[in-house]
Amino acid sequence: MKRYDEMTKEELLQEKEALEREYKDKQAKGLKLNMARGKPSEEQLNLSLPMMDVMYSMAKLSADDGTDCRNYGELEGIYEARKLMAEIMDTTPDRVICFGNSSLNVMYDMIARAMTHGICGNTPWCKLDEVKFLCPVPGYDRHFAITEFFGIKMINIPMTPMGPDMDLVEKYVSEDESIKGIWCVPKFSNPEGIVYSTETVLRFANLKPAAKDFRIFWDNAYSVHYLYDDKPQIPDLVRECERAGNPDMVYKFASTSKITFPGSGISAMAVSENNRKSILEMMKIQTIGPDKVNQLRHVRFLKNREGVEEQMRRHAAILRPKFDMVEKVLNKELISRGIGSFFSPRGGYFLAFNAPEGTAKRIVTLAKECGVTMTGAGAPFPYGIDPKDSVIRIAPSFPPLEELEEAAKIFQICARMAAVEKLLETA
Amino acid sequence: MKRYDEMTKEELLQEKEALEREYKDKQAKGLKLNMARGKPSEEQLNLSLPMMDVMYSMAKLSADDGTDCRNYGELEGIYEARKLMAEIMDTTPDRVICFGNSSLNVMYDMIARAMTHGICGNTPWCKLDEVKFLCPVPGYDRHFAITEFFGIKMINIPMTPMGPDMDLVEKYVSEDESIKGIWCVPKFSNPEGIVYSTETVLRFANLKPAAKDFRIFWDNAYSVHYLYDDKPQIPDLVRECERAGNPDMVYKFASTSKITFPGSGISAMAVSENNRKSILEMMKIQTIGPDKVNQLRHVRFLKNREGVEEQMRRHAAILRPKFDMVEKVLNKELISRGIGSFFSPRGGYFLAFNAPEGTAKRIVTLAKECGVTMTGAGAPFPYGIDPKDSVIRIAPSFPPLEELEEAAKIFQICARMAAVEKLLETA
Repeated sequence: MKRYDEMTKEELLQEKEALEREYKDKQAKGLKLNMARGKPSEEQLNLSLPMMDVMYSMAKLSADDGTDCRNYGELEGIYEARKLMAEIMDTTPDRVICFGNSSLNVMYDMIARAMTHGICGNTPWCKLDEVKFLCPVPGYDRHFAITEFFGIKMINIPMTPMGPDMDLVEKYVSEDESIKGIWCVPKFSNPEGIVYSTETVLRFANLKPAAKDFRIFWDNAYSVHYLYDDKPQIPDLVRECERAGNPDMVYKFASTSKITFPGSGISAMAVSENNRKSILEMMKIQTIGPDKVNQLRHVRFLKNREGVEEQMRRHAAILRPKFDMVEKVLNKELISRGIGSFFSPRGGYFLAFNAPEGTAKRIVTLAKECGVTMTGAGAPFPYGIDPKDSVIRIAPSFPPLEELEEAAKIFQICARMAAVEKLLETA
Repeated sequence: MKRYDEMTKEELLQEKEALEREYKDKQAKGLKLNMARGKPSEEQLNLSLPMMDVMYSMAKLSADDGTDCRNYGELEGIYEARKLMAEIMDTTPDRVICFGNSSLNVMYDMIARAMTHGICGNTPWCKLDEVKFLCPVPGYDRHFAITEFFGIKMINIPMTPMGPDMDLVEKYVSEDESIKGIWCVPKFSNPEGIVYSTETVLRFANLKPAAKDFRIFWDNAYSVHYLYDDKPQIPDLVRECERAGNPDMVYKFASTSKITFPGSGISAMAVSENNRKSILEMMKIQTIGPDKVNQLRHVRFLKNREGVEEQMRRHAAILRPKFDMVEKVLNKELISRGIGSFFSPRGGYFLAFNAPEGTAKRIVTLAKECGVTMTGAGAPFPYGIDPKDSVIRIAPSFPPLEELEEAAKIFQICARMAAVEKLLETA
């Protein structure tokens, strides 16, 4: 395969013409495909259907301690659900608060309360002249949407294959008191699928923030979401922060959204005792308690860490061929031609294609006009601005394999077209 | 039965002695009874156990429009759940947003967002010098806790048997731009069980608020929660506000908390189109969507308005004897002696005993020391302050009938003791 950057202008023009023919053929099919949504597929959802059977009408819906899960109460969630989530989160039940169906909502609430009431007795953020968050990029658009919603200024931090650029993180956090938080997806990061290195995690635990109310928003959304058998592990940041004498510095989040049902799972936070008391004190104004019947349902279905791992193996069996296929197409058609790059993820829900600078928007538009919806270019960046117009998030989970293959083929045509166009600009 | 206010000092002293003997006998039993919690009883919860059976593992968990309820999405809730809640709320599905398990959480969120972002483009409340809410009293302590949490100044509005004192409400709302809201439980009010009259509801619809972002927080928590067959009706405030040219002035709330399972129900809001758009615009930052599987479960179990009414008749059959018994004890032992007063509710979950001024705290303390937990005196008032120290909320729902009877007997002894003590102060 000839690399595009080694082609003459003549060759590029020929290639362009050939690609445009291919593109038109695909376009004529009038397809409607989607690689934008990090949603599990129907096949994956079926894995959890037996969860609907674990509650029988005359069964006792009581927690182990006798709590009637049907009634009001238990603000922090039932013990066995906290225990299950602790196993998923590599921590202990006493550190865990168990919530409703959306960990995003829990993160939003943490920031909303920090704005109006402050964190652990510190000044409410809305009373400060400026509040800033560090945002490793590319990252998760819904994280950035929350901070933008509250007028928090976002600062890009480049990702490396080891995690965020920690030199930069340490510098910002220690020097600027208005830096109040950082968004992290430490394992199988969204969208690159990068696993933070142990050194990165330990550097996080040992940050010396200028702000007393600086918090690491550690969204461990994919903690058990392996695609292969290598199962990379990272240290538990809650424990590492304790060891480093910074027990209150981290909020760790997780959910079963991509273990059972995305719309109907349970979510959790693991925090220090100090944070826990302060959070529950505010939460009791907001609600009488979470849906404990659904917590119990999850415990009865997933049982424990082993049950979760078994379930995740079944998910992986469905997801792996999809990731493999997408990577194969990217390698064969794009990487071999010297077009762009990507990190090959070992778990999670996404991969990120780094297209040649200045072509991401064009590729997404071309794909759209050929019936393939991608996540918007720029979405993985604060304010939707990718400074290099390069990163495209690919979400292989939702479409059936055949549709995904069709979508991937169209994607590579679009990426090549955009690459050729770009090269011709200066050829 | 001789009225206490007609007794001589001598007779009061004799009565005091007799009551103290009775009290000590009861105290010796070492009881642990509770009339504080507005929780349904186990018997009531069993009514909804078949709801656990309506989802079978291989059943389709799809909404009528084909939405897979297990996956992400549907911010405003599935259509059939919005339709069910519309039937409960006397409105139409297009006006309804359907949420998770806690309507209290929805109310909290409405106020939290008003604080940080303002309502429909108006100044965020946190930027204003002062924000005030009108609070009909006695009222629901958790409402007042939310407004207190956000530093909103609360102004007491006396309740009448027709609802809040509307002369006062109209005056405040039309004259003071810092009045941004009012808490209302319009049907079977918490704790008195009063149903707002049609005139009261229409006067609400025709308010002329000084503040553009004034909202009526219309918590219709007990809209179908009848105890008897008379089933009092009130006009739908959402429609009446539309008719009066004030479509955006009301947020109407409801939930299935006391229809199915308090911890695991679904909640809803009915609002104008303008409010609806603005709320969804903000909500999309906060969450990807509510638990749609639980919404579907409720639709399959309750079906429609008739199904709900049938369910509520079964609840009433369990609750009615409890209310009847408590009222009988109050009438026989207290009202007949000229001690206090109460409004006899036709639905809802509470009744309020108006003890002689200056005795409520004493009664609750006496009851506590005799093993009966009552809602704290003062709880139904902003800041926990009952200016007359008179109102005691009684919650008959949770204890089994025999326990409740024992508790009611102890309560009347305590109320009589406090009344005698008070009279002896000036005798």
